[in-house]
Parts: sequence; structure tokens; C-alpha cells
Amino acid sequence: MVRENEIRDNEVRIEAPERTDASLIFIGRIHTPWTSRLECPRQGRADGPACRIEIFEPWVEALDGVEIFERLEVLYWLHKSRRDLVKQSPANDGKTRGTFALRSPVRPNPIATSIATLIRREGNSLFVRGLDCLDGTPLIDIKPDRTLFTPIAPPQKGDFEVGDETSSC
Amino acid sequence: MVRENEIRDNEVRIEAPERTDASLIFIGRIHTPWTSRLECPRQGRADGPACRIEIFEPWVEALDGVEIFERLEVLYWLHKSRRDLVKQSPANDGKTRGTFALRSPVRPNPIATSIATLIRREGNSLFVRGLDCLDGTPLIDIKPDRTLFTPIAPPQKGDFEVGDETSSC
Repeated sequence: MVRENEIRDNEVRIEAPERTDASLIFIGRIHTPWTSRLECPRQGRADGPACRIEIFEPWVEALDGVEIFERLEVLYWLHKSRRDLVKQSPANDGKTRGTFALRSPVRPNPIATSIATLIRREGNSLFVRGLDCLDGTPLIDIKPDRTLFTPIAPPQKGDFEVGDETSSC
Repeated sequence: MVRENEIRDNEVRIEAPERTDASLIFIGRIHTPWTSRLECPRQGRADGPACRIEIFEPWVEALDGVEIFERLEVLYWLHKSRRDLVKQSPANDGKTRGTFALRSPVRPNPIATSIATLIRREGNSLFVRGLDCLDGTPLIDIKPDRTLFTPIAPPQKGDFEVGDETSSC
């Protein structure tokens, strides 16, 4: 069963600082078949239902050229998630793991990333498969899948640097 | 050459709404060999120099268990990037593409995602390869690589749903 807002046995909650370091703006909205957190997939599947990513103005022009990519990386904001757990018990059995060792929606900055398969573009909408979020989820970003993208800008010095066993910062 | 703040031929700038929809908190800092945008790699490489991801309190406990993953997905905030271009010319040759068809740091919400290879953990620090960001870049999130992670929570109805050719939202 998904978490609503409860804290489970042995989970650890922290008091997050009240400061804000950066601000996001929602650039669109994701339409999916799932209206309850009790139905959402844990992970999207490449053969899952088609979902629609709607882009708001003034960002629609930024879709130009996106159709050439078979897969897109989609970033979205998990607006229903609490942000204050550092240890979690996904199976609700008292066994916990750190938040950074999980892909749980509960995180200090609740941003999800998925690789979606592009079906087609229609105007300000992209139809895709592979998402796992609630209907109405706010969109943060879309990028070409990293494995399909080659930088267009000329390479820089850092592109050729490799590390040795001992190098570190 | 990387962009400093100039707008290039045929690039399209928009007036972004002034509203803020969500807030981020920086949970750590990334230490890399690159102190200038003229040196940074365009894309991180798995055999690149070791970089150090420092986690701030109160989030250090959230690292518990992260060592079992060979690769981690790292999200960071591109604090030097402008956010108002919807069409860009990465090669500075007058040819433009939409921002969502690029992995450029210039985006409405300038969040980068990388897959980093974990070398080791030392206390509040993770040593990794594969990053491509400036020294001092703010950290937003760390997750296990999606290809290495199996949800611990029991599956839900959505995990078994597949789409057909015509389904859409």
C-alpha cells in the first residue's frame, strides 16, 4: 500500500531547514490514467499506457526538433510527497533504507525522472509511454535520452580528461 | 566556446512568468576539477576524473545503503545558466533547435541529471566518476540508477497495465 502521510516503524524524520535555495516553475502538466496513488505503477514500463505531456506557453516553441528522439527523459514534480524522511520502510515491515538508496517519491526535493518512449507530437502535446505518475502531475523538464544525444557544441578540454585510481577532489 | 550570457543569432528568448511553483533546497555540493565553464566536459564520462559529492546535514543519514549500487543518478542545479531561451544555437552557427531537443544547461528549470559510477563512500561524501559540472555545483538529489533498482514496496495495479495502439489520455 502506498504511503499517504503516515510515518512507519523505524522511519527517520528530520526537520528540514526553512530556507529556499532555488525556485521551479511548472512548464506543463502530465495526463495519465492514474488518479489515485493506490493504482499508480511503482515504475513506468515501455509498453505501458499512452500518457500525454502537455506543454504550457511560452515554452511550446522549445519542443522544436524533439520528434527525432525515440526516447525522452522527463522530469516531474511529485506534488503529493512529503520531503522530510531520511530513512524509509517501503515494505512497511520495520526494515529501513536511506532515502538516497531508494527511488521512492519521498525525497528532500521530490523530483522524478523517467525515460519515456515517444509515440508522437501533436501541437503542444507529446504522447509517450513509460511514465508512472498521477494524472495532473506538474512537468519540470524534457530532454533527449542521454544515450541518444550527441552534443552539438564543440568539445572542451574536460571531454578528454580521464581519471586515475587516486585522483579525487 | 560555452555561452556566458550572450544570445546568439536566431536564438529565441521568452519572458518567463514571474511566479514560483515549487522550491528546492540544496542538500549538498559537488566538488570537481573544473572551475571554468570553458573547461567543463559537455558530457561526463564513466572513466572521467573522480569527483566528490558532499552531503550536508540533516541529510547524511539518507545515504544509508547507497554503497550497494554501482551507479547512481545525480541531480544538480546549474546555477550559472540562464533560463529564458526556447530555441538555441549550440554550435553558434545560426542553426537553432528547441531547448527540449537539447541537453544544454540553459533550460526553464536548469536541472542536470547524470549517471555516476560510485567509487566509494567516506562519511558524508561519495566519490564518483561521470559528472560534468563546475566545482561548487549545488546538489539536489541522489537515486540508484533505474536499471539497478527493483522496488521494495509491493506492486500496484498500474505495474501490470500495458497500452494499446490507440489508448491515450
